[in-house]
This record gives sequence, structure tokens and C-alpha cells, in this order.
Amino acid sequence: METVSVALIGLGTIGTGVAKILLEHSDVLVSAAGRQVVLAKICDKDITTNRGITLPSEIMTTDIDSVANDKSISVVIELIGGLEPARTFVLKMLRAGKNVITANKALIAQHGQELFDTARGCGRTIAFEAAVCGGIPILGTLMTSLQANRVKSIHAIVNGTCNFILSQMEENGTNYNDAVKEAQRLGYAEANPAMDVDGTDSVQKLTILSQLAFGMTVDWKSIPRTGIEAVDAIDFRYARELGYKIKLLAVADASSNDIELHVSPTLVRKTDPLSRVSDAFNAVRVIGDCVGPVFFHGLGAGRMPTASAIVGDLIDTVLGRTAITAGALQLWNENKREAKRKDPNEFYGKSYLRMLVDDQPGVVHNISGVLGKHKISIASMIQHETTEPKQNGKPPVFLIIATHKSREGDMLEAINEMENISSVHGKVVRMRVLD
Amino acid sequence: METVSVALIGLGTIGTGVAKILLEHSDVLVSAAGRQVVLAKICDKDITTNRGITLPSEIMTTDIDSVANDKSISVVIELIGGLEPARTFVLKMLRAGKNVITANKALIAQHGQELFDTARGCGRTIAFEAAVCGGIPILGTLMTSLQANRVKSIHAIVNGTCNFILSQMEENGTNYNDAVKEAQRLGYAEANPAMDVDGTDSVQKLTILSQLAFGMTVDWKSIPRTGIEAVDAIDFRYARELGYKIKLLAVADASSNDIELHVSPTLVRKTDPLSRVSDAFNAVRVIGDCVGPVFFHGLGAGRMPTASAIVGDLIDTVLGRTAITAGALQLWNENKREAKRKDPNEFYGKSYLRMLVDDQPGVVHNISGVLGKHKISIASMIQHETTEPKQNGKPPVFLIIATHKSREGDMLEAINEMENISSVHGKVVRMRVLD
Repeated sequence: METVSVALIGLGTIGTGVAKILLEHSDVLVSAAGRQVVLAKICDKDITTNRGITLPSEIMTTDIDSVANDKSISVVIELIGGLEPARTFVLKMLRAGKNVITANKALIAQHGQELFDTARGCGRTIAFEAAVCGGIPILGTLMTSLQANRVKSIHAIVNGTCNFILSQMEENGTNYNDAVKEAQRLGYAEANPAMDVDGTDSVQKLTILSQLAFGMTVDWKSIPRTGIEAVDAIDFRYARELGYKIKLLAVADASSNDIELHVSPTLVRKTDPLSRVSDAFNAVRVIGDCVGPVFFHGLGAGRMPTASAIVGDLIDTVLGRTAITAGALQLWNENKREAKRKDPNEFYGKSYLRMLVDDQPGVVHNISGVLGKHKISIASMIQHETTEPKQNGKPPVFLIIATHKSREGDMLEAINEMENISSVHGKVVRMRVLD
Repeated sequence: METVSVALIGLGTIGTGVAKILLEHSDVLVSAAGRQVVLAKICDKDITTNRGITLPSEIMTTDIDSVANDKSISVVIELIGGLEPARTFVLKMLRAGKNVITANKALIAQHGQELFDTARGCGRTIAFEAAVCGGIPILGTLMTSLQANRVKSIHAIVNGTCNFILSQMEENGTNYNDAVKEAQRLGYAEANPAMDVDGTDSVQKLTILSQLAFGMTVDWKSIPRTGIEAVDAIDFRYARELGYKIKLLAVADASSNDIELHVSPTLVRKTDPLSRVSDAFNAVRVIGDCVGPVFFHGLGAGRMPTASAIVGDLIDTVLGRTAITAGALQLWNENKREAKRKDPNEFYGKSYLRMLVDDQPGVVHNISGVLGKHKISIASMIQHETTEPKQNGKPPVFLIIATHKSREGDMLEAINEMENISSVHGKVVRMRVLD
């Protein structure tokens, strides 16, 4: 039986999971890949810490060049994360004639074109199923089974950390800071969760989904993005009153000619399956012009689900399916016809607005005047009598407005003007409403 | 650019959908398959009826041999359904050197070994994504992305007709016969819906799923199967009271050493995503030992969703991915190690029992005695006071019993004994309970 030698760069949580599958599932691999898959080298700057898994010491190395120069190794799995030295290592491995597998969404989102051009130039492949939604096989599906379709839209919950935090706030009434702490305690959030909660991670994943669904090479920084930091426990109460839950959604909508891309906390109807995605789960709904809606739900992060996707990629790579797909799709190829992106000002949708206003005559009149001037029509308005004690006159109260569909540019201008009304205090919190 | 010539056998609902995609999505196909895909021949016994689609008359034929003998045709899509002449035609095409794509689950379930052995002998492939769950890419996913996993279980709603009927009964209180008529009116059920409602279609699909998940070649007739004919509107009321909905589930459970396969109407907890699959939708939950639970939901039937799966298969076939997968997996190969099936008597699970009993002292005592004798423990019992007028003495009433887990063999014996108690009228309706 043929043997394939594989190297692993980065022995963190995911790397340990991959090593575990390669060592403990060898019968599964033989039957899936038709050959013996051998873990020939593991490269990490720290090869002494005990990871709770027994690894042959002779395959451990701190020397990246010993991986690149080992001619017997044909596949390298990059799991160090971040941009550098991951980028340098991946380029080095491709140039050394190795196929690469990575779970690194930041790397692919930032350097996709360079990496895939290099891979094409070297006649090698990069597989990256684990970069989006961990164990959910959404990338493979977009690249194969759904290829007969023109994708009409993608609505996705791609960040488990944010979904866990929002679920805690939704289900237990936890406030934002406590929910973040709980996520950190359980290992769902890092010590500095900025890249998750500010939506960076989600736009990077949306960039990858957009490449696969529309062949668009998008600068992830150009995608309009709102994080979950401004979502307050009180928003869940109002959203519930209106019939919604709140989810951080990554959206690619091609239902008009141009494609609308954004990431933002979004009110999702209670009857929509996306609203029922709880804890650290991820989900994706793809609507294709032929297949209609297809909904995927599963674990988007964690050691073994992510390792499952990586080893799936390994089997694809070893069997040569990855090379066929790469040849057909020409991902991140600058010569490809580009889909046109919609000007963010022309996005068109419903909004939820929360603002703190003085409880006095004329306030609603002023606010509705600003909305009317910008052609924004009010669908619902909620203002509850406050139970707080009076201090100097009446305390300010929350005013919640749900609007009918409006132009994004108009909405942003209206918010700006509303924030300048003297009886409106602080920022107007705005979320999208999916309907 | 290279050209691939394709023939279609069977121009019914699905065939027309496939023709539509091939003719109207040629740009999508070129970009996905890297070559021009040409619909070279359509073979049907009726080539005169207007199908609402404009087809070049020169490609229409009633002569199957003209397809087999056309050397320019490399892929044939079989969409006539049923066993014969579909089997003969598929074998003929493989022997004529053509790759085959089919949506025919009955054919694959019944003749899988013969067909795949023939394909291997001829160096050709059979693709069949559309045979299970229409547009949901579950087969491709099992054959590729999830290959790193040992599959622990599959729970699936694979028959849209039954799901539509059960949803009507659940949501609108429709009785069984009216729900069947409504399904027929909307085109979800055939004039004779026997193969759907008696569970045949579901076990055939379960056979295919079992082959992909466990490498098991199963005679579909040997899978224990209960249809939905005995489910009554009243069962939904009692199920709701107990916190469940009723779904026809196809189950493959490998959580113990041997694999448990069955199809039956099943009480599914309201919080389980499977319980929320409504109308004619299909859904599959796969639990893998690495990936955990992955849930897929989409349209399992209908012209365009099914055509989407077939054209996806066409792209896979043309690109050569299907051949790679076939080579690696050796589906329906008699030389493969077989997974062991569990003796149906050893299935172990919860049950829901509904029986019509005399409203008189001692009845519950007798029934609980039978259950106790067979080591079956009662979890809940419901008997509502009847509002029906008294006739000769008290009218019989429904007695509902939900049990804790028990051995299937014990349950079947207990049911048999209960049906012989003189105060129990007619059959005991039994459903599984998923927990």
C-alpha cells in the first residue's frame, strides 16, 4: 500500500486534535484515502510542553526548514494561525513542492491572491475547509455539490464566540461583560476577544465565502462591519417583544444585480432557523437559484470538529480531488471576471433603532420628523413607562423604533441627525432586521 | 475549450429541470466544469408532449440504442425511475463506456452491488447524490468532508411526502386521509402514495446512507419499517402534551458496536431541530466522533432542487472527482469488510403506546402487569375523561403510555400480549421516542 507523509506546523489545540486523528484513526484514513497516512513531522517552537497526547519524539522539531527540505513529505498542515510567520511558512512549503492545508481564515482573507497564485505557479494546492465554520462542510459544498446554482444569498453565523455571548444575554439575561467573561472561562473567547466581538473574524470568513460563492476577491477591511459590543441586555427584551432574536450575521446577498456584503448584529425572526442557533454553534443558510434554501448547522470551532475538517481536506488532497477543484475554480485568480459589489449606501433593508431620549413632549415628533425627511417609514415604536425614580425632572427613557425597508445611506444620515437632537442622549444603537 | 456531450434518459419533472439547467446555465457550467457541457440527446418514450421548455427537436429520440451507440456521449443521466427498464438501461450505458448519473434510489438500493460492480468492471462511475434528500448535499458530504469521522449515528427525515402529511396533521389538525389528499393536490404525493407512506422509500434511502456511512450493503427489505398510516390526529395531541412532535425518522445508530437500522414514526422533542422540519422539507443529522452533530436541512424533492444535485454530480463526473471517490470508497463492493447489524430484537429505546381500552377498573392494572412482566418501565401515562355520549355502558377511552428504554423484543411481545387483553380493543399503536 502507498504511503503519504504529512507534516504538522503548530501543535496547539487544533494541531493536537489533528495529530490525535492521524494516530488513532489510521484505519479510517486507510479506508478513506486508500493509502497509509503517516504523520512524519511536527514543527512547533515549543516541543516540550505536554499536550496530553503521546507523540514519537523523533518526529518533533523546532526547525521549519527541516520540514521544507524533507522530500518525503508531500502535505503540510499549517495551524499556527495569524498572518506571520504563517504566510512565510505556507509560501515556503508551496515552493518546496508540498500541498498545504490550513485553518487560517485571517491568512486566506488577507493574502488569498498571493497564496493561491503561488500554489498555481508551483502546481500545488491549498485546502482550507476548516477556515470557515470548523466542522460544517460548507466550503466543500459550495465548491462541489452546489456548483449548478447561481448563489442568491448566504446568511451565516460564523463566529461561535459572539453567538455564545449573544445566547447568554438572550437566554439568561446576562449583561455583555459577564457574558464575555463566561465565554472566556469556557474557552470560547480569548483573553483579548476583540477580533471576535468587533466582527473582524466574521468579515474575514465572509470574504472566503464570497470568493467561493461569487468568485469575488474582496478586501475584508472594505466590508461594512458592526460588532456586538454595543448590544445591550435590554435589546433582547425589545427584540423579543417585536418577535425577534439577535444574532451576529454575515450576509452576502446577490438577490439584486450587485452583491451586498456586511456583518452586523441582526434581528432574526423567532421562526427563522438561524434564530435557534445557540451557544457556540455556527450555521449557514445558502439560497441557490435551483436548490432553494439549504441550511447547515454544527460546531464551528473546537479541537475535534476543526480537526475533522482538516483531515477531510487531507483526504481530498491526497486523493487529488483538491487539485481538480482548484483547477476548475481558479480561486483568488486576478484574471477572473469579478462580480460587482453594491455601494454600501445603496443597501436596502429594515432597521432596529434604540436611543435614550428625554421623556417630554415633542421628542417623538422631532425623531419621526428626521426619519420622514430621509424617507424612512416607521413600522413599530416602543416606549415603556420608566420605573426609575425621578431625579432632576423625569429620567430619560429608551425609545425603540423598527423601520420599514430604507436605503442605507438615508439611514446613516438620519442616525447622524437624530444624535444631534438635544433630547436624544448619546449614540443611537442601530441593528439590521432580517425579513 | 473542451466539450462534453451528455444524454438524458427520461424527460419527466426532474428531467425537464435538468434540461433547463443545462440549457440556461451554460455559463455557470463552463465556469464550474471548465468545459462546454452539451445536451446531445434526450431519450423518452414520449417525445411529443409539451413540457413547457423549448428543446431542439434533433436531440430528441425514443431509441435507447441511439444513445448507447453514440460514441460522442460520455455521460448519461438516468431519470426514468423504478427498477426496469432503468436497470437494463444503466447497465447498457456503463457497458457502452459511459459514466452514469441517477436519482433512482430504488434502483441503487435494490441493485447497488450489480450496478457498482459493473461500473468498476467497465472503469466507469455512477453518481447518485439526487437519490437521497434531493438538493441537500448529504451523500457528497459523507463521501468527502466527513471522511475523517467514524459516524456514530444518522437521524433523517428523507421522505417529503410523509413529512408534509405529518406536518398537516400536526399543525392544522387535519386527519390522515385529508392530509394525503392535500399532498396529492399539491403534487407532493403520487396517486398511489403507498411506497412513501409505508416507509419503503425511506428504508431504500437509509440503505444508501448506511452504505456511505458504514460501508454496509443492506437488503432494504430487511430493515424494520413502520409507515405513517396508523398515525392518528389524536397522537399529535398526546405527543404535544408529552413535549414531542411526530416525524417519520430513518435511523442508523452505531453508538453501540452493532448498527441499528430502522424507519418508523417517532416522537421527537420539540427542542430538537428535527422536530421543526416542516412541510415537504428533508433533514439529516449526522453525528461523527470528531465533528459532533452536523445538521442539514433543505428541499428533498421537486424539479429544481433535485436537478441541482444531478448537475452537481455531472460537474463532479466531468471533472473526474467522482472517479477518484469511487476508487477510494469501493461502494457496494462485496469484498469490503462489513459492519455488523444489530438484531432488531436487541434495539433499545423508548416507546409511545396508544390503545383503546374499556373505561373500567383493573384495565391499567392488567396492562401495567404485562409491561412489568417484560421489564418495561412506564415513564408517563395519559388517560383523559371521555366526552363522548355513553352508549352501552361506558365508551372505551384512549390510554397513552410513554415508556422508559426497553429491549425491542420485549416490547413486541408485550404489545402482542396487551392486544390479547379483552378490555383492550384493536391494535396497540406503537411509535419510537427519540431522546
